[in-house]
Amino acid sequence: MTKTLIFGHKSPDTDTICSALVYADLKNALGVDAKPARLGEVNAETQFALDHFGAEAPEYVERVDDEIDNVILVDHNEFQQSVDNISDVRITEVIDHHKVSNFETKEPLYFRAEPVGCTATILNKIFKENEVIVSKENAGLMLSAIISDSLLLKSPTCTAEDREAAHELAEIAGVDLETYGLEMLKAGADLSDQTALDLVTMDAKEFTMGDANVQIAQVNAVDTNQVYASQDSIEKEIEKLINDKNLDLFLFVVTDILENDSDVLAMGQAKDNVEKAFDVKLDDRNRALLKGVVSRKKQIVTNLSEQF
Amino acid sequence: MTKTLIFGHKSPDTDTICSALVYADLKNALGVDAKPARLGEVNAETQFALDHFGAEAPEYVERVDDEIDNVILVDHNEFQQSVDNISDVRITEVIDHHKVSNFETKEPLYFRAEPVGCTATILNKIFKENEVIVSKENAGLMLSAIISDSLLLKSPTCTAEDREAAHELAEIAGVDLETYGLEMLKAGADLSDQTALDLVTMDAKEFTMGDANVQIAQVNAVDTNQVYASQDSIEKEIEKLINDKNLDLFLFVVTDILENDSDVLAMGQAKDNVEKAFDVKLDDRNRALLKGVVSRKKQIVTNLSEQF
Ligand SMILES: [Mn+2]
Ligand SMILES: [Mn+2]
Repeated sequence: MTKTLIFGHKSPDTDTICSALVYADLKNALGVDAKPARLGEVNAETQFALDHFGAEAPEYVERVDDEIDNVILVDHNEFQQSVDNISDVRITEVIDHHKVSNFETKEPLYFRAEPVGCTATILNKIFKENEVIVSKENAGLMLSAIISDSLLLKSPTCTAEDREAAHELAEIAGVDLETYGLEMLKAGADLSDQTALDLVTMDAKEFTMGDANVQIAQVNAVDTNQVYASQDSIEKEIEKLINDKNLDLFLFVVTDILENDSDVLAMGQAKDNVEKAFDVKLDDRNRALLKGVVSRKKQIVTNLSEQF
Repeated sequence: MTKTLIFGHKSPDTDTICSALVYADLKNALGVDAKPARLGEVNAETQFALDHFGAEAPEYVERVDDEIDNVILVDHNEFQQSVDNISDVRITEVIDHHKVSNFETKEPLYFRAEPVGCTATILNKIFKENEVIVSKENAGLMLSAIISDSLLLKSPTCTAEDREAAHELAEIAGVDLETYGLEMLKAGADLSDQTALDLVTMDAKEFTMGDANVQIAQVNAVDTNQVYASQDSIEKEIEKLINDKNLDLFLFVVTDILENDSDVLAMGQAKDNVEKAFDVKLDDRNRALLKGVVSRKKQIVTNLSEQF
């Protein structure tokens, strides 16, 4: 039988992990031999969601094995965010909500990207289109993904479709949206156990902007000052990454989930572009407060890309 | 109001023209100010379909004007097949059934590619999803697109979904599928008025394979020998194109719509790859018969890509 592997991006977030789990389950219900996978560590927020709904994290894979015939990408399409040997495998589907870039196939495929706030919102539609019942566990996982990507429906990336799906799924999952949502976000924002290296790599994505290599890492926090208490160690880790990966810019984004602002740290030779993109001045520690900015995709990547 | 322009690929075929017309009509029904356009001459087959169902060809555009806010691509996604200033415009949607390559956006979009035989088959589904009634004219145009792309449902690219859509649409359009289909294909296969330049450009697509520039032109014919009666002139035109566009390979494909074979002519420094890809020997006039090969996308591009 044809074996299909389903996974999201590197430095997995809650949408990536939950969408891989849920879509594999849906594919199984449709008679496809599909298995979820992950390309990195499960973060504290995602672990909280998995525990709450009694789900297990998918298996970690370093590369796609020979016994796999097809892969399905969820929550990403850019090859640099995917598994290392992505160019050598047959991609049969993509379900995503990001811009399309650095992606190509040799053959036609099912590629479904929609400008919504979360992959799970699209998956919820696919359940309906295929008339498959959403289990309590799957509803909880999809709900967690939407809460995570939309910062409890507050991000500018959140659409009416995401909101509607979230309310519907909260009902099936049997939780109160606000209460569960804040609990989950706080679990992710508890950074006390994280090393400086964890902080700059736990949710980091690479982008090619113009000719420049840009990495943007984001963490959610209840108290941004607490994160920057270890700014010296954070800077050392970022310097290493800039050298190792030949980055032109590393932007470290600490998002305050209660205030819905971001306190960012910019390093690398192209850091001036951050000042131009957001019309701010970096202070003497290379930091700036971006008022009302919470979305990497819609507010940071879009503005920053234009400067390169 | 936001103005949206909808168009298919250069060297337009029946799917490209009809899908632009039909999707613009559907968008208008949904309250979007959308206008269809074309990037090249309407061929004889498409003209037959337009005349038969009382439709007018969309307006020709050379480039996307400043007054247009958004563009929607149908039946293609690769930038080299699109309008010249495609990199400078905002693409909000893609509806396509080809491999994805050389495509990128700065922002999330609605990108819907499905591995079916024709864009119109996807459009027929979008009508249903939006609960918009398909008019007789739109049914006729979508039917014509499916017949064209599937060579009257005989191409290996034709899926069960295409077949089902074709039968359903023939019913609404009030035509007999086989009779109308053969008439339309023959109208396109009447090449008596075409110059050698017409033949090599009327349905030509460029591809990047590895580092190589490859152009593949396809014409349908009832009698392939009649087309090659002017092989000398055809070769001269191809030589010019190879020099002008710096092509590594030009493959001219004459598809016999009654026999469902293709008689191809290969020119350019990489022509050996054609022999390898199809396990044939080019004769002393650089021609070979590819038995059972009718689909550029599924049978030619796929096999050829692997050689580069
Ligand atoms: Mn996501
Ligand atoms: Mn087509």
